[in-house]
Amino acid sequence: MSEKAPWITYRPELRVLDCTIRDGGLMNNSNFTDDEVRAVYECCIEAGIDYMEIGYKNSPTEFPRDVFGPWRHCLEEDLRRVVGDHSAEATGLKLAAMADAGGKCDWRSDERPCSESVLDMIRVACYAYQISEAADMVRHYHKLGYETSLNIMAISTVHDAEIDQVLEIARDTPVGTVVVVDSYGSLYREQIDHLVNKYKLALDGTEKEIGIHAHNNLQLAFANTIEAIILGCNRVDATMLGLGRGAGNCPMEILLSFLRNPKFKLRPVLRLIRDTILPMKKRFDWGPNVPYLITGALNAHPRSAISFSEKDPIGDIVAFYDKMLSEG
Amino acid sequence: MSEKAPWITYRPELRVLDCTIRDGGLMNNSNFTDDEVRAVYECCIEAGIDYMEIGYKNSPTEFPRDVFGPWRHCLEEDLRRVVGDHSAEATGLKLAAMADAGGKCDWRSDERPCSESVLDMIRVACYAYQISEAADMVRHYHKLGYETSLNIMAISTVHDAEIDQVLEIARDTPVGTVVVVDSYGSLYREQIDHLVNKYKLALDGTEKEIGIHAHNNLQLAFANTIEAIILGCNRVDATMLGLGRGAGNCPMEILLSFLRNPKFKLRPVLRLIRDTILPMKKRFDWGPNVPYLITGALNAHPRSAISFSEKDPIGDIVAFYDKMLSEG
Repeated sequence: MSEKAPWITYRPELRVLDCTIRDGGLMNNSNFTDDEVRAVYECCIEAGIDYMEIGYKNSPTEFPRDVFGPWRHCLEEDLRRVVGDHSAEATGLKLAAMADAGGKCDWRSDERPCSESVLDMIRVACYAYQISEAADMVRHYHKLGYETSLNIMAISTVHDAEIDQVLEIARDTPVGTVVVVDSYGSLYREQIDHLVNKYKLALDGTEKEIGIHAHNNLQLAFANTIEAIILGCNRVDATMLGLGRGAGNCPMEILLSFLRNPKFKLRPVLRLIRDTILPMKKRFDWGPNVPYLITGALNAHPRSAISFSEKDPIGDIVAFYDKMLSEG
Repeated sequence: MSEKAPWITYRPELRVLDCTIRDGGLMNNSNFTDDEVRAVYECCIEAGIDYMEIGYKNSPTEFPRDVFGPWRHCLEEDLRRVVGDHSAEATGLKLAAMADAGGKCDWRSDERPCSESVLDMIRVACYAYQISEAADMVRHYHKLGYETSLNIMAISTVHDAEIDQVLEIARDTPVGTVVVVDSYGSLYREQIDHLVNKYKLALDGTEKEIGIHAHNNLQLAFANTIEAIILGCNRVDATMLGLGRGAGNCPMEILLSFLRNPKFKLRPVLRLIRDTILPMKKRFDWGPNVPYLITGALNAHPRSAISFSEKDPIGDIVAFYDKMLSEG
């Protein structure tokens, strides 16, 4: 038994990414106000957070602008309206946007180099079967000068052999980070170990980092994030007050209260929660509850639980459980 | 890397204890109705739960009956009004009550043998400095025929050398289980490992089991419970919907969705939550929030957060944080 106490030290290379506006956009069609996005941006800088994911690079054709807010497309002029001529060097904060594979993003015609954008990083999101397009997207954005990551979603539903194949392809790209994404919030501690160790092995000998993106269906988002950190993950996703679709994400305020690097400040995050995030609860709600637990435990997409909760927030959870079981 | 998947198997010797009524009694002076206690009791039997802790054995002199409900004293006639002539053999459920050291319990005059009580187990709760009285209490109740446990509270505030001393004394008693109690909900995964390994080492070679009782301030109650299970804890505490003072406890519905022993049934727990537990939220509230996170992260008693939340559920969390820091 070690008599040391590693939990009061820190690893300087660990980087925190806030994805409140990006992930939260799944709840409100990315219709956050400029003031809300600016408040999160300023909070990230003040709190010492390393990256802020400010939205999706989704196609305005597929996601029309009269339905979806500006944070669904991340047009340069919309971004600059809020962050001005953002500079990562001056602020210590890098800006990221997520680009989905599968026809959701017009990446082929997206030719703006990183040097002409306020964005510093593109996170490419894909399902395992979309890895070939995703690898092309990584190469495209890498060539334009962006830092990149590959977020392979719903990994809890993918067979080991397929994960190995995906990682082999990822290894062969210039991607900087490969993220373990527990989209359904269904992974337990030992499964996180299994996956992180698999990613480490597959990317061994490269400079690529491993990331973790956890959902809170089983109230394990923060715990699984810690677990991944212990195993060597250096790229960690969280959102303010855990804001995010369904059960939500790893809560930033808990994560920062745990990380011992003095550069991270909890107080600005609490101020943002008080002034900006808690008031959002009047428009839409999120966080762990029984229906999301049921989909998480069954390794199912949260959509049934979301539709159940929208219809009746205090609905019949036993009937919902019976329905989920009978649908297999 | 192991290619096995231990998370889909189970350990038959693992026992689950429901402490909804006992721990929840700290929120409402144990003023649960008979119907509520009966509903939990019947749910535990139907769900295959192994133990139900039905209340405290507190002294009616210190905790007067006009203020505190029957589940604060666990008089035999009150218990029998709800559970009849309860039999552990017939139901598969053992009944437990908690006896506090430090003058809160008239244990010396409590001479009812286990054979004449519906109670099967006494859980002795103490702070580390009360271990001598607690050891006497264990011997007393053991002699009367009860199964016993030692729940050493607020362990996150106790120095290692003192913990070692406490465990040496515990080892020398006939106690059946020694429980790691994270009263402040402030322990992280590696600290759980440190403590559970310490308890294991100290009790090595005895038949004593190790238990875990976690609080949810850092949203780690369930995660720390899993971690303890992985390390060999066979006695696990939880409450329905995490009901409990402040941030609450390890939620039973999440725990049962994780345990793979087919004797455990989730559905009766969901029914109880729907019909009995969710309605209680109108009388008192519990569950993780920012003030409880702050006390947990500071390894402090939740009392400041409770008093803050009672005064104003949407109070100024930044001011609360500043106050907690300035009080050191």
